[in-house]
Amino acid sequence: MQKGRASMVPGRPVYLVSSASVVGKKEGEGPLGEKFDVVEQDAMFGAPNWEQAESAMQKQAADLALEKRDIHRKDVRYLFAGDLLGQLIATSFGTVDLDIPLFGLYGACSTIGEAIGLGSMCVGAGDADCVLALASSHYATAEKQFRFPLGYGSQRPQSASWTVTGCGAVVLSSKRPSSGTAVKIAGVTTGKLVDMGIHDSMNMGAAMAPAAWNTIMTNFQDFGVDESHYDRIITGDLGRIGQKILLDFMREEGHELSGIHMDCGIEIYDYGSQDIHAGGSGCGCSAVTLCAQILPKLLSGEWKRVFFLPTGALLSTVSYNEGQNIPGIAHGVILESV
Amino acid sequence: MQKGRASMVPGRPVYLVSSASVVGKKEGEGPLGEKFDVVEQDAMFGAPNWEQAESAMQKQAADLALEKRDIHRKDVRYLFAGDLLGQLIATSFGTVDLDIPLFGLYGACSTIGEAIGLGSMCVGAGDADCVLALASSHYATAEKQFRFPLGYGSQRPQSASWTVTGCGAVVLSSKRPSSGTAVKIAGVTTGKLVDMGIHDSMNMGAAMAPAAWNTIMTNFQDFGVDESHYDRIITGDLGRIGQKILLDFMREEGHELSGIHMDCGIEIYDYGSQDIHAGGSGCGCSAVTLCAQILPKLLSGEWKRVFFLPTGALLSTVSYNEGQNIPGIAHGVILESV
Repeated sequence: MQKGRASMVPGRPVYLVSSASVVGKKEGEGPLGEKFDVVEQDAMFGAPNWEQAESAMQKQAADLALEKRDIHRKDVRYLFAGDLLGQLIATSFGTVDLDIPLFGLYGACSTIGEAIGLGSMCVGAGDADCVLALASSHYATAEKQFRFPLGYGSQRPQSASWTVTGCGAVVLSSKRPSSGTAVKIAGVTTGKLVDMGIHDSMNMGAAMAPAAWNTIMTNFQDFGVDESHYDRIITGDLGRIGQKILLDFMREEGHELSGIHMDCGIEIYDYGSQDIHAGGSGCGCSAVTLCAQILPKLLSGEWKRVFFLPTGALLSTVSYNEGQNIPGIAHGVILESV
Repeated sequence: MQKGRASMVPGRPVYLVSSASVVGKKEGEGPLGEKFDVVEQDAMFGAPNWEQAESAMQKQAADLALEKRDIHRKDVRYLFAGDLLGQLIATSFGTVDLDIPLFGLYGACSTIGEAIGLGSMCVGAGDADCVLALASSHYATAEKQFRFPLGYGSQRPQSASWTVTGCGAVVLSSKRPSSGTAVKIAGVTTGKLVDMGIHDSMNMGAAMAPAAWNTIMTNFQDFGVDESHYDRIITGDLGRIGQKILLDFMREEGHELSGIHMDCGIEIYDYGSQDIHAGGSGCGCSAVTLCAQILPKLLSGEWKRVFFLPTGALLSTVSYNEGQNIPGIAHGVILESV
């Protein structure tokens, strides 16, 4: 069902019935450490190279999310999945054994929002009863893909973020779990590309903040609500600099978010001890924080309703070397405790 | 509405109401040359680099598809789009001016099938009345991304394909055009990753043929039909070697496709004069052949029903250098003349 300019409400109820988070050692040492399902000490995840390590992590998260609810792979109709790598290479190998029809997605670090949005559309329409949505990133594959050989030891500016090693997987279903509180997908606000002329790849928070602002304002307009409608408005990986920009932008629109804004990139690491500079980033950042921090607070009833909008910065080494800007995008979903 | 294991029929009718194809000089010199909407003689499309050339081509195709039916950008609810490049960089820049909420997709050369499939799900569900689906590739960006610097002049084996410079864009709508024959999306069969152990990136037809076979067989089973149900079964870019493998695989299942199989990669160039070896490939190959060749034959009534399944080979330079296999995927849609 259409809402406003860019939002929709699933035609029949869609529940987020299971989730799993698999992370690396550094994420396990952060403030959310004990809340992740699996903290893998081996950065290689038992694989011979970084990309296959990320693939192994995806497979582990997917299988764990299914196992928790005793769902078999064959009962999952579609998989909506992506990662940060060129040609989604972690996903192409990570999900082959799942043997589930795949929609490969790329929304940079916003991918889990895109995946849950499309998955909800699909389940809400009755085109599937059960789908899996997942997104991953790995510190080493991302550095290898986007930045410098790790061994160079280049200096990172304070505005740089640290790519999360992690995969979050969630199961969306038309069937409400038989007992207890459930999390419902109450709406989806799809983001558009927003290019404000940022071209510093070491300051992705600044590139993504305008996209987050755009998606939040669209959501407010489409649903006729404001910040009072939500217990939290949660961005993916703006970090401390991007958060400041977002709050400033929102203030100019007359919305004060400082009490209720949360950013997964700020939550996931400890600034004092973990040397991560502006915050965590990567597709995995918002995906694992969703599973480990956001869903439990909705299930416990501490939060009633949140607007979760993973944020992505669209760049490649080629676009960067050609001096192009970094457009941002933010894909939002409304999660409700019911 | 679900059909069988992996297929769906849109909940309300979805029509493919407009399309546009923009191609490069070489494609314009091929057998379909006169059927394309725009044949651009400048490989740079007036842009300063190859990636921006591909972006310019996307924008041109999108705008032309809208103009043909006098549809304004603001009336398009969602855009489903992708390309072959790392981090979808052609799409990230090509579609920013359209100002339409974007679902970025990656399915390698199968992307236009994925885009039409998801777009049909969305319109069929009533989550949008009008969406745009597009996919592009550019010979020079693809060579730069995947293979060798063009200037090296490396030898290409006969099994290699030639990446099409082209973008195909289609408009999906819940409203049937007011007069004449229309093309309806009668069903969608979503592909899964199929890895048969091929690892020769210069023989992508062989990597994709098993995925095409898998999607065709799934479609037959899900809809309870066989080849007699279709006037044509049309793959994306198997080329001559991949076609042979597909026909052999299908024959082993008891299905003789030689009379009705068509491959966009075989159609788009002239083997005798254009030095393209196994055939055309790239996201643009199936997308522009759809617009220039397939839709006109459906609209004229020459064909009543086709199964169109763009095919993708999932590899990156990283996965190739690590010696990994090349899984294939094929996303199918049933197009009907109504």
